[in-house]
Amino acid sequence: MKILILNCGSSSFKYQLIKMPEENVLCSGLVERIGEGMGKLTHKANEHSYSEEHPFPNHTEGMTRVMSLLTDTKTGVIARLEEIRACGHRVVQGGEVFSESCKVGHEELRKISELSPLAPLHNPAHVEGLQVAMRLLPHAPSVAVFDTEFHATMAPGAFLYPLPYELYEKYGVRRYGAHGTSHRYVARQAAKFMERPHTGFNVITCHLGNGSSITAVKDGKCVDTSMGMTPLAGVMMGTRCGDIDPAIHDYLVRHTAMRIEEINDMCNRRSGLKGVCGMSDMRDVHAARENGVARAKLAFEMLCHSIRKYIGAYFAVLGRVDALVFTAGIGENDPLTRAAVCANLDVLGIRIDPEKNTQRAGVARSISPEGARVPVLVIPTNEEVAIAQATMRVLEQ
Amino acid sequence: MKILILNCGSSSFKYQLIKMPEENVLCSGLVERIGEGMGKLTHKANEHSYSEEHPFPNHTEGMTRVMSLLTDTKTGVIARLEEIRACGHRVVQGGEVFSESCKVGHEELRKISELSPLAPLHNPAHVEGLQVAMRLLPHAPSVAVFDTEFHATMAPGAFLYPLPYELYEKYGVRRYGAHGTSHRYVARQAAKFMERPHTGFNVITCHLGNGSSITAVKDGKCVDTSMGMTPLAGVMMGTRCGDIDPAIHDYLVRHTAMRIEEINDMCNRRSGLKGVCGMSDMRDVHAARENGVARAKLAFEMLCHSIRKYIGAYFAVLGRVDALVFTAGIGENDPLTRAAVCANLDVLGIRIDPEKNTQRAGVARSISPEGARVPVLVIPTNEEVAIAQATMRVLEQ
Repeated sequence: MKILILNCGSSSFKYQLIKMPEENVLCSGLVERIGEGMGKLTHKANEHSYSEEHPFPNHTEGMTRVMSLLTDTKTGVIARLEEIRACGHRVVQGGEVFSESCKVGHEELRKISELSPLAPLHNPAHVEGLQVAMRLLPHAPSVAVFDTEFHATMAPGAFLYPLPYELYEKYGVRRYGAHGTSHRYVARQAAKFMERPHTGFNVITCHLGNGSSITAVKDGKCVDTSMGMTPLAGVMMGTRCGDIDPAIHDYLVRHTAMRIEEINDMCNRRSGLKGVCGMSDMRDVHAARENGVARAKLAFEMLCHSIRKYIGAYFAVLGRVDALVFTAGIGENDPLTRAAVCANLDVLGIRIDPEKNTQRAGVARSISPEGARVPVLVIPTNEEVAIAQATMRVLEQ
Repeated sequence: MKILILNCGSSSFKYQLIKMPEENVLCSGLVERIGEGMGKLTHKANEHSYSEEHPFPNHTEGMTRVMSLLTDTKTGVIARLEEIRACGHRVVQGGEVFSESCKVGHEELRKISELSPLAPLHNPAHVEGLQVAMRLLPHAPSVAVFDTEFHATMAPGAFLYPLPYELYEKYGVRRYGAHGTSHRYVARQAAKFMERPHTGFNVITCHLGNGSSITAVKDGKCVDTSMGMTPLAGVMMGTRCGDIDPAIHDYLVRHTAMRIEEINDMCNRRSGLKGVCGMSDMRDVHAARENGVARAKLAFEMLCHSIRKYIGAYFAVLGRVDALVFTAGIGENDPLTRAAVCANLDVLGIRIDPEKNTQRAGVARSISPEGARVPVLVIPTNEEVAIAQATMRVLEQ
């Protein structure tokens, strides 16, 4: 069956048409700058890339254009839209309402919309994408796959904050986590790679990209994760600070001209690697380090220190660790970060084989020496395929 | 020699007169409610306790009264004030200015005062106490011993926050840590107990009391600590939240009537154990747990989870750990917390002998089984003796 995967932001959306269960990507694309003066559409199919620029006043216009490309004789990969069996949507925040993927009707749309305060940049866009897809593909059920659902198994002792309890009851202040679709996918792929059932399998998954999060997976289930109520918490990232002293806000309000919204914006967009060395892309940071730029070295050290602390913390949480997994942009493609993070972690049974670490390959692989106590794996993530799998599971229910 | 130890708060101060190097406490006491309607003085000496209530309009009045008690024929322990060789002062915040204890003159007073923005409740009171002591005991040098100085050895990769670098340069936003005098003292006592030189000795020290912090000590030096720019950060505490998602502030400002100062106050005074279960004293929490109060169980679980994560994190930071130390109110006296924190930490080589753990004793002791990979120690802290030791070291320079 063919499943259309949609990942909608407020002014853009990405899509893939995937043939399942073969996990065969038939086409993929991106519509950008929706609602702005000039929009852009990029579409890849049949080993060709096709792009066009013209205004897309709203998501409906963008999606309509994509539908015609899908069935076009030149750019298309299907004869009729009816071949699309279902539409799988990435939804960032499922709160405590959605602990698993589900078919979306009016009721679910309302609930996803109500969760917008917890994901103000994302959930409203997802609602719009869901509405458009349901209208343009009335024959294909829309399934919502939540970034938070893999984290729904955390116990209250791990997901609650030590704040007045009524903040949780009244305002939903708790840890929800993020990147759950990726963490679940690579945790299962890791078990598969090690020829183990994913139940009974304990793994620490490091999803390191522009946004980064680390998850402790016990017996196949998430028991703790570094991102919090929002994706700002946890390890240091490209432009996000991760964990800081929560008294810093008040101090900055008292001693600078900043207001709380500005501080929040600064923590999200001008912190992390960028805040320390001015560069948010790890490749730039490495180049600067090679040129002896002290601040780039410092930023890299801080990032590795912060990741290392979470790995140690999750060893303590899990009690037994069967594998450590790196995934996503940095996790999959940056041997320097992997090597620096794992240096000096012998105490945890973690070692890296320098040669295996630097070999590039787009497939799941081990980068630790033979017989290592805790195998270190690099597992390419694939959130679209994971969403397609989840969508299929919902259809089969 | 006899050293007077002073720990001054804004409306109270504690004191001890200690004979060194014997570490013999000659007397101790507390003056409370300074500047309020009715003050209170409690003085213990010669195995007797003496107390009186009358107004103390300021620190000078309180200190003058203490001086006369010290030399009084009934309550006294010295014949003349000149027997006091020096005065050792606890100072909470030494910033980056003071990386070690020092004699205090006008210049030092000014600098300690200038650091007040980083410790608004403490440093102004310390300055007042220093001024009074210098005036009343002109023959005895006043020595400032900083809570932060043990943490001055942290590398930038550990003490900086992933925020815009100019916040560090302009406003001193960085990790300073706290409880340093206690962490240093117990780290050294631990090495002594294990008959090891403190250089080359790696230890994780858990100072768990009303305020709690955990420190990673490598080769006798602090390399990381859980408290941050302020004592709000790190593990969950009696009334303090410790680490939370830094986006929560903005969310609360948007969705509740709270302002940033109120949020900060809430994080400091109405969070932690108290926020979750209404009780901030661990003994009350244990009693409630025994009575089946679900929220007390939850608060305890959260606290242990938070401590466990720091222990794991510091294993990763240290690479090799020679001992895990518990100290301060909870750390020394609460076998339930120690047992719960260490449960399931076999992976780190940490195990507790249940019998040794429940035996009470006011001396340094091991509570792990014979031959444990990482010995777990209970070491009574003694900040006053540590301050007296530091004061002596400064005098001898």
